[in-house]
Amino acid sequence: MIGGGIGAFIGDAHRRASRICNDYEFVGGVFDVDYEKSKEFASQQGLDLKRCYESVESLINGELALPAGERIEMVSIVTPNYLHHPFARMLLENNFHVMCEKPMTMTVEEAIELEHLVRKNKLTFALTHTYTGYPMVRQMRELIASGALGTIQRIDAQYYQGWVNSIIHGAGSRITGVWRFDPKQSGASSCMGDIGVHAFNLIEYTTGLEIRQVLSDLNPVKEGFQLDLDGTVMLRFDKELKGVIRSCQVATGEENNLTIAVYGSKASLKWGQENPNYLYMLSDSEPVKVFKPAHGYNTEFAEKSHTMPCGHPEGIYEAVANIYKGMAKSIRGEAFNPGEFPTVHDGVRGMKFIHAVVNSNKNGNTWVTI
Amino acid sequence: MIGGGIGAFIGDAHRRASRICNDYEFVGGVFDVDYEKSKEFASQQGLDLKRCYESVESLINGELALPAGERIEMVSIVTPNYLHHPFARMLLENNFHVMCEKPMTMTVEEAIELEHLVRKNKLTFALTHTYTGYPMVRQMRELIASGALGTIQRIDAQYYQGWVNSIIHGAGSRITGVWRFDPKQSGASSCMGDIGVHAFNLIEYTTGLEIRQVLSDLNPVKEGFQLDLDGTVMLRFDKELKGVIRSCQVATGEENNLTIAVYGSKASLKWGQENPNYLYMLSDSEPVKVFKPAHGYNTEFAEKSHTMPCGHPEGIYEAVANIYKGMAKSIRGEAFNPGEFPTVHDGVRGMKFIHAVVNSNKNGNTWVTI
Amino acid sequence: MIGGGIGAFIGDAHRRASRICNDYEFVGGVFDVDYEKSKEFASQQGLDLKRCYESVESLINGELALPAGERIEMVSIVTPNYLHHPFARMLLENNFHVMCEKPMTMTVEEAIELEHLVRKNKLTFALTHTYTGYPMVRQMRELIASGALGTIQRIDAQYYQGWVNSIIHGAGSRITGVWRFDPKQSGASSCMGDIGVHAFNLIEYTTGLEIRQVLSDLNPVKEGFQLDLDGTVMLRFDKELKGVIRSCQVATGEENNLTIAVYGSKASLKWGQENPNYLYMLSDSEPVKVFKPAHGYNTEFAEKSHTMPCGHPEGIYEAVANIYKGMAKSIRGEAFNPGEFPTVHDGVRGMKFIHAVVNSNKNGNTWVTI
Amino acid sequence: MIGGGIGAFIGDAHRRASRICNDYEFVGGVFDVDYEKSKEFASQQGLDLKRCYESVESLINGELALPAGERIEMVSIVTPNYLHHPFARMLLENNFHVMCEKPMTMTVEEAIELEHLVRKNKLTFALTHTYTGYPMVRQMRELIASGALGTIQRIDAQYYQGWVNSIIHGAGSRITGVWRFDPKQSGASSCMGDIGVHAFNLIEYTTGLEIRQVLSDLNPVKEGFQLDLDGTVMLRFDKELKGVIRSCQVATGEENNLTIAVYGSKASLKWGQENPNYLYMLSDSEPVKVFKPAHGYNTEFAEKSHTMPCGHPEGIYEAVANIYKGMAKSIRGEAFNPGEFPTVHDGVRGMKFIHAVVNSNKNGNTWVTI
Repeated sequence: MIGGGIGAFIGDAHRRASRICNDYEFVGGVFDVDYEKSKEFASQQGLDLKRCYESVESLINGELALPAGERIEMVSIVTPNYLHHPFARMLLENNFHVMCEKPMTMTVEEAIELEHLVRKNKLTFALTHTYTGYPMVRQMRELIASGALGTIQRIDAQYYQGWVNSIIHGAGSRITGVWRFDPKQSGASSCMGDIGVHAFNLIEYTTGLEIRQVLSDLNPVKEGFQLDLDGTVMLRFDKELKGVIRSCQVATGEENNLTIAVYGSKASLKWGQENPNYLYMLSDSEPVKVFKPAHGYNTEFAEKSHTMPCGHPEGIYEAVANIYKGMAKSIRGEAFNPGEFPTVHDGVRGMKFIHAVVNSNKNGNTWVTI
Repeated sequence: MIGGGIGAFIGDAHRRASRICNDYEFVGGVFDVDYEKSKEFASQQGLDLKRCYESVESLINGELALPAGERIEMVSIVTPNYLHHPFARMLLENNFHVMCEKPMTMTVEEAIELEHLVRKNKLTFALTHTYTGYPMVRQMRELIASGALGTIQRIDAQYYQGWVNSIIHGAGSRITGVWRFDPKQSGASSCMGDIGVHAFNLIEYTTGLEIRQVLSDLNPVKEGFQLDLDGTVMLRFDKELKGVIRSCQVATGEENNLTIAVYGSKASLKWGQENPNYLYMLSDSEPVKVFKPAHGYNTEFAEKSHTMPCGHPEGIYEAVANIYKGMAKSIRGEAFNPGEFPTVHDGVRGMKFIHAVVNSNKNGNTWVTI
Repeated sequence: MIGGGIGAFIGDAHRRASRICNDYEFVGGVFDVDYEKSKEFASQQGLDLKRCYESVESLINGELALPAGERIEMVSIVTPNYLHHPFARMLLENNFHVMCEKPMTMTVEEAIELEHLVRKNKLTFALTHTYTGYPMVRQMRELIASGALGTIQRIDAQYYQGWVNSIIHGAGSRITGVWRFDPKQSGASSCMGDIGVHAFNLIEYTTGLEIRQVLSDLNPVKEGFQLDLDGTVMLRFDKELKGVIRSCQVATGEENNLTIAVYGSKASLKWGQENPNYLYMLSDSEPVKVFKPAHGYNTEFAEKSHTMPCGHPEGIYEAVANIYKGMAKSIRGEAFNPGEFPTVHDGVRGMKFIHAVVNSNKNGNTWVTI
Repeated sequence: MIGGGIGAFIGDAHRRASRICNDYEFVGGVFDVDYEKSKEFASQQGLDLKRCYESVESLINGELALPAGERIEMVSIVTPNYLHHPFARMLLENNFHVMCEKPMTMTVEEAIELEHLVRKNKLTFALTHTYTGYPMVRQMRELIASGALGTIQRIDAQYYQGWVNSIIHGAGSRITGVWRFDPKQSGASSCMGDIGVHAFNLIEYTTGLEIRQVLSDLNPVKEGFQLDLDGTVMLRFDKELKGVIRSCQVATGEENNLTIAVYGSKASLKWGQENPNYLYMLSDSEPVKVFKPAHGYNTEFAEKSHTMPCGHPEGIYEAVANIYKGMAKSIRGEAFNPGEFPTVHDGVRGMKFIHAVVNSNKNGNTWVTI
């Protein structure tokens, strides 16, 4: 693991998820830019301090010096955004599999470079588009693929949070994450780069369609902010299909209100992250149907994505664990469903989306092709 | 009443609502272009056939011939859209108060003309932006006016229906309403004119803010359709505030899913038409609060807008009845809350919105000032 | 109308509902024990003061003196409980149809007497078990009758309110309804008599089954109260079927939380009064199905019990109006569905239930046969 | 671990939860009565086969032979019910800490015996009343302890499942768990012993009150079944307080619908297991409040019982992990909140409840003191 030391929430989440999934052993990493803190963290975790490295370079060298069977096989990158690309590149060049937090890189070019490296070195690269790990999202994907919705007529996705609000209005004590508002560390966008891209990914994941063009209007909300904290993105797909992504980090009181609605000529599907075990199918002629995990009516892929019997709610860790599980299958050379983990290609798509959105806004709200 | 004869749903709804409100007596009208059908309807309703007129002209003449105290005071217009303006103009010119279905007219100019007439003749004109009659919408309006939300940072409204779907995909037997797809009868827009404008009105009603600019992308969805069945409208208010209206008539399985969310710096409010007795207040630091009718914590205006004790759900008829009630107060010269019924000015705003949306789409998705 | 004068909520509700239904004209009654107040109310309502009577006797005499066609046909009794029986008896003896608030009488014997009178004089008598007027309750009744649930295995009904709480804990200003705690005016039970009996009726209405035996535990909650404010009633039906009714008037914060769940061997149905337009069907092998009004999948009876298109919520007035509508059909000699309004027989069942519950509690919580 | 081998769901759940909690290492056990299967399972899990024992006796002997620091400290018992007591006794007698599935034993006497042993040997014993691990259940406990509800007036708990339905009606392929219907393996009760006791525990856990008396009516539902599949239990607490537990295993379509409602003189709290991150506070004078994890308004104990930021749903594994975490603190001698894990005393209470319920039913539905 790179990053994720003392006080880092996302690193802890990765470790918990990987333990649920039970295909990984946590043996070492670089946990902090401050080596002392990094070692303190390694001690707390009961790790062998020899594998608590000072830098990514020394991790690579140290591990490559070990016999193949004992070497770290896979590295999770959970650093601030601007470090994803350099660390991922180094690790991939040295034949480590990589799990990377999103957004994958700062620029589209960097993303494409990683995609090439992954292909060249035949490695497994997974991006934590966490929400694709939920059983009912997978059920949604397969219901759509089966044609249950007919022709898709409208797509609507939202990701609303409120946490930035407490920062920009002063009294807030939540200063974690403030690097997100610095373009140098965060990239071209805050709101779209951090959460809007999840809505983007969820649309492409569940429908199998590609978004062709975007027209965006972004809002920094507060004077002095360089990046967007709020925005709306109109979408155009092939054919006549249109849609919209709405994303906001100052939607007071919203927590992680990510939703998707896909409306088809025959039926529609609606899902929301905060109640992830409920998938709603609407039609004009039949009662609304509510799909839940652990039922024979679900597809095999959805059913393999949960472990509890029906009615025992599983949550976000189990979703991340499903992504770790898929990656483990890929590393071991086992068969896996293409929907089992987001790949480097999804990362490239995401970077293209973010930059297209930013450019549309810069150009005075015009259509930009992805 | 003009229109609303045999088989007309909306006319029946108006009559039921006016009976709940108990300030009106239904005495006559012009119920159908076919005079025989009109008379058949009048008989069914137990009306005096002398007051079942052949045309709006004959209604005006007939009623003006009666002594002032016996004369029809107020007329509800529930015809197809293109007849709203000519009938409303004639009635207003002859000093009848008018309740009119929306959209008020076909063009902005016609709308302004009616506004002038209403002012000149000192009449009461109400537009059935039905949803403003719900108690919790009125509570929302007054909570926002009181400053409970702080500075508004984001506004999001949606109106999704699915009923047109069954028409455009053939087998559907619901052919009522097909006049809506004919620009000559319906006006410049189907989806935005019929339902998007409700979302528009609800935003301005609850927040007291005016939308300054729109940028829209409309979708006829099916080849051969001249009007929009789906669309997204980006919104700009004064200052830094942005928002979005989403509206769709082919959102399969949606019924009348009108929602509004207003996000402020201190708190947020969310309301949905299909569960109209629940108003949600979100904040970053307190539990979500759910407001319901018939509680001492509501404002006086909200409390006067329902009649049942708490927990006995009131519905759409009661909302329309509230608008009839407000209009009755105005006609009788009693004091009323400016939020009690939508006026001709709201009708003008609505027409400006619809035309701005259509123009933005025509101009290649550019910003248009309202 | 008997009762329902100034400040009386339930009388107003009856009048609104009857106006929605549009089969009745409100012409007169006895509105208050204080004749002056009664006349004041009649003036407010614009009634002919000649038909504002001083007593039920004078109403009967006055109306019988009129020609048959002008005479009041039907009387709604909305007085405190202990007056239901004497007034209903007089009216029925004089051939007036009667709509009566529940509980129908104070004793089982009185109830049976009314049943005999109704049969003898061939009159229509309806009891306001309001909740049977909701479209989705009717759909539930017909789904069960169709065998959709298989063998019923468990029945669970609840009616929780909190309003008495504010009275017994002092500061409360809601003193309306305090006659309810006086056994002389209210009868043998407060909680079971006022609301538990609705749960009882809803079970028998929706399932078509008769409850054979009850075992109850009632709770006056506060010292000094003679009647129950809270209670649980175990139920036994024919065969192996068991169930339970829970009812409480001091369930703080509950409004009118009446729910019913019927569990069958094949499927189950759940409905709640506070969201009356949603009926949930559960099964072990299929997604949960949500039935709503205004869809082709409902039975004809359910569909005739609402008037709005789907997604426009109807509420409690519309439910009561459905009961008035059914009674009107019966009075006019038209065909009607036996589920269209609760009859005097339902009233007899209700009185038997209340007394059996009270006796079980008195006897030290033993089984009592209804 | 004792039990929990190939195909056993509950053992897997324990292992996942203990890995999330990260205070345990899984090193060995007795996983199946068939030693070959047990070893196969151990291999799959990557365990040292030397610590895959043939019997509980050999496990005890084997481990005691190891140096103290390497020895298994704690054993999870996840066998069928009738084996809980003998295995727990042996382990406790040999100074192993024990995590035990519920119901703790077959008889009250066995339960008391374990309680004595735990006290005598100063060991930590935890019972998996899983639901006490949810953050919002802990918040509920502390809100009640703080007096937020005033005097409690009514308590209502439910645990409904439908899974047994598919077994008793034949075609069902879910034959796992059938040992539950055999009194020799399962104990005196199926429905109350398996799930009703969770409702019992949740009441005592959240309110801090003790149930004094029960009166029950149990139902085997299907001829030939010896144990209850359905039942209602009336409750009496000290003072005037009453309540009810409803429990059913043939509530078709219900999954794990465990709910609790506690009504107080000032306010009420409602929680349901299937949406565990929502806690509702009702009052007569204020809007309904919805508490969720990860907010400053929660108590410290509730806040320490989740790890994700708000809006990222945690589920059942995280709840079980909280119980493992509490037990780990106790084993390590660290301070812990008395609500952090259910103790052997809770197990004794549970056994007393189950037997009182069964006896009340046997005695013809009379009150039995716990």
